This record gives sequence, structure tokens and C-alpha cells, in this order.
Amino acid sequence: LTTPSPGKPRVDTLIDGERLISRLRTLARIGARADGGVNRQALTPEDAAARKLVVGWAREAGLAAETDAIGNLYLRHTPAGADNAEPIVSGSHLDSQPAGGWLDGAYGVIAALEAVQSLKENGTALSRPVEAVAWTNEEGSRFIPGVMGSSFYLDRLSIGEIADKQDPDGVRFGEALGELLASTPDLPVREQPRPIAGLVEAHIEQGPILEAERLTIGVVEGVQGMRWMEITVRGRTDHAGTTPLRQRRDAMLAATAMVQALADALHDPDDIIRFTVGRFIARPGAPNTVADEVTFTIDLRHPDEDVLERSTEKIRRTVAEKAGACDADIELQESLKPVRFDQRIVETVASAASDLGLPARRMVSGAGHDAAVLAQRYPCGMVFVPCHKGISHHPSEDADEADLIAGAAVLAETLRRLASD
Amino acid sequence: LTTPSPGKPRVDTLIDGERLISRLRTLARIGARADGGVNRQALTPEDAAARKLVVGWAREAGLAAETDAIGNLYLRHTPAGADNAEPIVSGSHLDSQPAGGWLDGAYGVIAALEAVQSLKENGTALSRPVEAVAWTNEEGSRFIPGVMGSSFYLDRLSIGEIADKQDPDGVRFGEALGELLASTPDLPVREQPRPIAGLVEAHIEQGPILEAERLTIGVVEGVQGMRWMEITVRGRTDHAGTTPLRQRRDAMLAATAMVQALADALHDPDDIIRFTVGRFIARPGAPNTVADEVTFTIDLRHPDEDVLERSTEKIRRTVAEKAGACDADIELQESLKPVRFDQRIVETVASAASDLGLPARRMVSGAGHDAAVLAQRYPCGMVFVPCHKGISHHPSEDADEADLIAGAAVLAETLRRLASD
Repeated sequence: LTTPSPGKPRVDTLIDGERLISRLRTLARIGARADGGVNRQALTPEDAAARKLVVGWAREAGLAAETDAIGNLYLRHTPAGADNAEPIVSGSHLDSQPAGGWLDGAYGVIAALEAVQSLKENGTALSRPVEAVAWTNEEGSRFIPGVMGSSFYLDRLSIGEIADKQDPDGVRFGEALGELLASTPDLPVREQPRPIAGLVEAHIEQGPILEAERLTIGVVEGVQGMRWMEITVRGRTDHAGTTPLRQRRDAMLAATAMVQALADALHDPDDIIRFTVGRFIARPGAPNTVADEVTFTIDLRHPDEDVLERSTEKIRRTVAEKAGACDADIELQESLKPVRFDQRIVETVASAASDLGLPARRMVSGAGHDAAVLAQRYPCGMVFVPCHKGISHHPSEDADEADLIAGAAVLAETLRRLASD
Repeated sequence: LTTPSPGKPRVDTLIDGERLISRLRTLARIGARADGGVNRQALTPEDAAARKLVVGWAREAGLAAETDAIGNLYLRHTPAGADNAEPIVSGSHLDSQPAGGWLDGAYGVIAALEAVQSLKENGTALSRPVEAVAWTNEEGSRFIPGVMGSSFYLDRLSIGEIADKQDPDGVRFGEALGELLASTPDLPVREQPRPIAGLVEAHIEQGPILEAERLTIGVVEGVQGMRWMEITVRGRTDHAGTTPLRQRRDAMLAATAMVQALADALHDPDDIIRFTVGRFIARPGAPNTVADEVTFTIDLRHPDEDVLERSTEKIRRTVAEKAGACDADIELQESLKPVRFDQRIVETVASAASDLGLPARRMVSGAGHDAAVLAQRYPCGMVFVPCHKGISHHPSEDADEADLIAGAAVLAETLRRLASD
């Protein structure tokens, strides 16, 4: 598989793998945690330092660096004669979870920089500009909501409406953003978002599928739809020693029956439905007292909106059936429709991986990404690489260097093909 | 049922019901909470004030009042010629839960005082002393362990070994006990516990059975045995969006399956087994993260030790069977053997209720009591009266006055019969 035919692209001529890894390691030092993870939350001094580092690398490479009013970073190579063409864009985010890993987001930015820089250095013939981007505050762990920079780019969010939001320490978003922008006084500020001809985001999978199937590349066809629900079961508190079971209205027994019946009702032989009860809180929580209230969450995901709708109906039916002597209600807290990426971009990623001789599969992203936001308006796609045990949003997040390099090469070849139309 | 035959005892000649209720209402003002409940925890100034009040009533009635090294209160009527006979004792406790009710404990003390005082006032012929007792710190909510005064009486607990225990505010037990004893400087202090010929404790049922069956008196044959267990289920945390269900080790699904299977395995057609899962804690507890650890408690009670043992075996088997891809272990945290009360005392309570024309049933106490501790050495029994909706350990704890009066009359008649042998 690793012996390409003559005339086919090769990983080691498309990008500089050593430089990619070296930059990722250097970036990981900014906000490094003692446990090996990274704490580089949005709009912190660490976030600002990461931006400066990346802008420095881009400028050394001769790329034009810009920012905008929300601090998104644009690092552009414009081939001769392509000044007026809409660019092909690639990027992710530099901010991390408070107890995050070194690759989530960072990989997509540094791989994009590597791809754009290599296309420039190799003198690759292109008919469009290629641009590496770092979107502001994807994680949303310090300032809610996440995917802020990409939402701003689509004009789905204005700085005015979030300026007064505070982080847990009471720092205003507007103040933190002002400090971030002041840290790069020499960067030109784009007044208006510009149309994008196509966008590809590289990312670690954040799931276990590629590793389990020993594949190098995930050709991402879209992002699952998601529904978050909270179920509240209300019974009556009673003394555990004195109240016969037939006289009880035990919220614990009703809620655990619901969870089991839901797991059965939503069982999917194809193992595509993601059904998770991650939070389960029983009150009053004393060992010798019958629980009078349980709240539990459902995180439900699937690539097909119809399946989500049918599954929600099953949830309503099952919860009502299993309530017994208790009362139960369901609150739908969030609902995100599935995203389907642009067919031409998906096929370009697939053929680039195939021509590079890399084992790949089509898949759907389980997590949200900037590319899923931008897909609301622009043709988008994603490239996944395997990560260890599927772990992400955790200091132990990791990936094989060879896979990170292969993913960046697929990204570079994909950008080349998209920018050559 | 309420028309007794000639020569049979009558509630209104045995005790002064109005005085009983009036004293209970007066006592409930000490530590009264705004929500109607009582906060009169052990060895607090409120506890001391309650003792002074009760000692005052006893002295007015001509009873001899004493205390001992742990603050138990003894209020004795010694009929002529009975000085050297072992007494018949009745009592409960004056301390309450922090958010307790007005009857738990208090009823048993004031009913005993009423019975002893009435026996004295009526000049009832007796061959033994009769004594009302208030045992120190039954609840154990401020200083652990509970049933302290009765355990001390059996020499199962020495003050030295608990003197340095601290309450949540850091107050030492020894210091609080010193203050309590100092509040009644005029009370003689008993040097040694004295043997008891028989003991009967009156108490609200703290369960719903008498009320549901419209009965006035519970003839308590014993106290259930109890086992407390904690089950820990360990799986693996995974991203809810990205990890296929087959690859998960979901502690939530395993633990809820255990709870359901346990409820099935321990199902008792006679509804005697008390099986309660009151606490269920899932970690990390994020809606979009598969739980990697769940701990839940089991409170298991039954009057028969063999049933408890067989049920424990079922629990072990069921937990192992339902662990699936997770690990699970069981910690036995507490085990109390069932208590069987003295047959002669049980029959005496039953015949007193019957002769008073009060509807009664035999039953087993679901909760622990001082009488269950003292039954380890002395012949003991209990009288239950119904309480509203079975509620106790809660400000809304309540009972019908007529039932409280009837229970005190049964107690007085029982003490009379036991002290007349």
C-alpha cells in the first residue's frame, strides 16, 4: 500500500513531516500541564502566545498574515494571477479544553500551515489562493458558546451580543478579546469575511474507529446530528426500613428501568446510533431513604435526522411506559441537525488518500467542528487521522507521528486539487 | 371495638391524655424549626433544656430523678415495699434529627412519663418500681454513633473511647457531655447501670402500615436485620459522540442493569424484604461522556437472618452477572442481625391493646431503636402508634392525638401488668 505508482503523489514530497511534528511539539509547550496535557483556553495569554508563534512561522514562510474583529487568524499564499479568486481554506483552532490534549485543534492549524507553506515552497501550480486559518474559541470552555470564530465568519454571531459574557473568574469577553487583538498590533485586520471556494479541516478522530480498523485516514462525509435531553422522574421519599415496596413510588427503580429499556429500544445492530446516559443524579441520595427524584441525561446522535426523530419518539414512549407510579417528563435541551459535507470535497479527500496509498474509510464525525458550522454556507470537508484509544479532551490524548504526517499530506494534496480547478 | 367490657381497662382512666398531648406540644417548642419541625440534636443547649423541662414535670409528679455519666435520665416511681425489686422501664430519647419531627423519641419519653406518673397517681398496686427513661443521643446525627445512651447502659461503649469525637463544628463529645451534665447540677448521678426486669418503648411507627390498615397499635415482635452494601462499577470513559456502543465499557448501563436485576431477584411476593437503592453516583457525570465509574448503595432488611444471607448471595451473583465488560465489587458496610423481642412482653402488649379494645397487629420494626439495643441483655418490647403517611425524620412528621393517647394507655397497662408479677 505504501509503494505508490510512478506519477502518483508521495507523502514525503508533499510536505515536510519533520517540521510538522516539530511545530506541534513546540506549540504544545504553550499552556503545557504537568500531566502532559495542554490548558490553552480561548483568549488567554497562552492563546495569544500560540497565535504569535504561528504568525511567526507563517511570516518566515512568506505567507500573508491577517486577523479579524474576533481574532480569527488567516495565513495566505496567493499564487501569481490568483489575487481575485476565492480561496481554498483549511484550518481548525488553537484553543484547548482546560484539561485538554496537544492535538485537538492544534493539529488542524499546524497541518494547514504545513500544507499551505509546502504548496508555496514547492511552487505548485494553483489557480486559487490557499489559506490556513485558526478560528477563535472553538471549545467554548471559557466563554460560551463554542465555534465562535466560525459562527462569526458566517455572521451568525456578533461581538456586541457576547461582549458582556463573563468567564468563571468574572473577566468580560470583550475585555479578553481586546487583549488578544492588542497582542498582535502589527497584524492587518480584515473588515469583512470573504467568500470561501472550499474548506477542508484536518483533525484527530476523537474516536476509536480508525485505530481499531488499523486505518490511516478518515474521509469525513458529515457530522452526526445530536439531541440532548434531560429526563426528570419524580416519586416520593420514604424510609427504606419501614415502607413496603408495593407502597413506594421509587424514582430510582423507575429511572434505572427507563435507562435499561431505552438501551434496548435504541439498540442498533449496525452500531451507528450513539446513545449515552452520562449524568444520573438521585435525590436526596441517602442510602436509607427511597429516592424521590432522579434526573438523567440522554445524548443521542446519528447521521440521519429521520433516525433521530424516530428515536426521540421511542424515548418518549419508553419513558412514559416505565414511569410506573412515578411522574416523568422529558426536556429537549439541544438539537443539532446532521451535516452532510460537500460531495466534491469528500471525493477529493478520498482520491487524495487513495493516490497516496493510504488505507482509508468513509466515516461520520461524532463531534462538532468549525467545518460543520462553515458547511452551512460553504463547500466543506474534513480529514481524520487516528488517535490513541479514541481519547480526546484529556491530557492523555495522543496520535502516531506517522499518521499525523500522512494526514497533513492528504490535506496538502486535497488543497492542491481543489485550488487547481 | 371501642366499647370495653366491664372490668376491662379504659384509656381515659389509665392516663391523662390531655396532659400527654400538652407536654408533647410544649416539648416541641424546644428546638422548634420555622417549618414546623424540630432541631434538637444530642448534647446541644436545646437537648439540655428539654431534659430540664422533663425533670421538672417528673419532680412535680413526685418521681425520683437521676442521671448517669452519659446523661441518660431516669424518672422512677417506687411503690411501697418494692425498693429492692428490679424495675420495669420505659423510654426513648429526647434528641432529634437536624430536620426532625416532634414525635420521634419525644413521644416515647413523654408517654413513659405519663404512664409512670399515672400509675403513681392512681395508686396502682405494683410489686416493682416503674421508671421512665430518656436515653442520650439515639439519633447519632451530631455525634456518631447513635443509640449511645443505651449502648453505654450495656457497657458496650465507654465515654473514654468517644470523648474526642467531634461534631461538624469541631466541638468534642467530651466537652458537650460536660456541659449537658453541668446543666442539671442538682440531679443525683448513678454510678452503675442497674439490671432491668423488663423494658417497653413506645414510638411512632415511622412507616405506613398501621395507617394504611387503619389500626391503632403495633405490637412489635422485633426489629429487622439490616445489611448496607456499596457496589462500585468500573468501566471506561469515552466520547459519547464518537465511540461505537460495542466498544464501550459503560458503567452506567452496567449499574442500571444491576439495579433492575436486583429488584427482580429480590422480589418478595409477601412484600417483607426491604430493598432500597437510595444513592447512585455516576462519574464523571458529563452528559457527553460515557461514565467510567458508578457507586450505588443497597439497604437490605428482613426479620430473618437466613433471608438476609440468601439475599446477599443473590446480590453477589446478580452483580457479577450484570457487570458485562465492566468490573464490579461489593463492600459490606454494615450488618445488623434481626432482633426478636421477649415473648412475654410481646404478649403483654398484645393483651393490653386487646383488653383496651384497640385494633392492633403484630409487626416488625423497620428502623432501629434503643429497645433493640437493650434487648441484647434485657427482656424488651415496643408499642407502635400510626404516623401520618409513614413520614419520620422530617419536619412534616405527625400523628393523630387519639392514637398517641391510645398508645400511652397501652404502655401504662403493659407496665402495670409487667410490674405486678
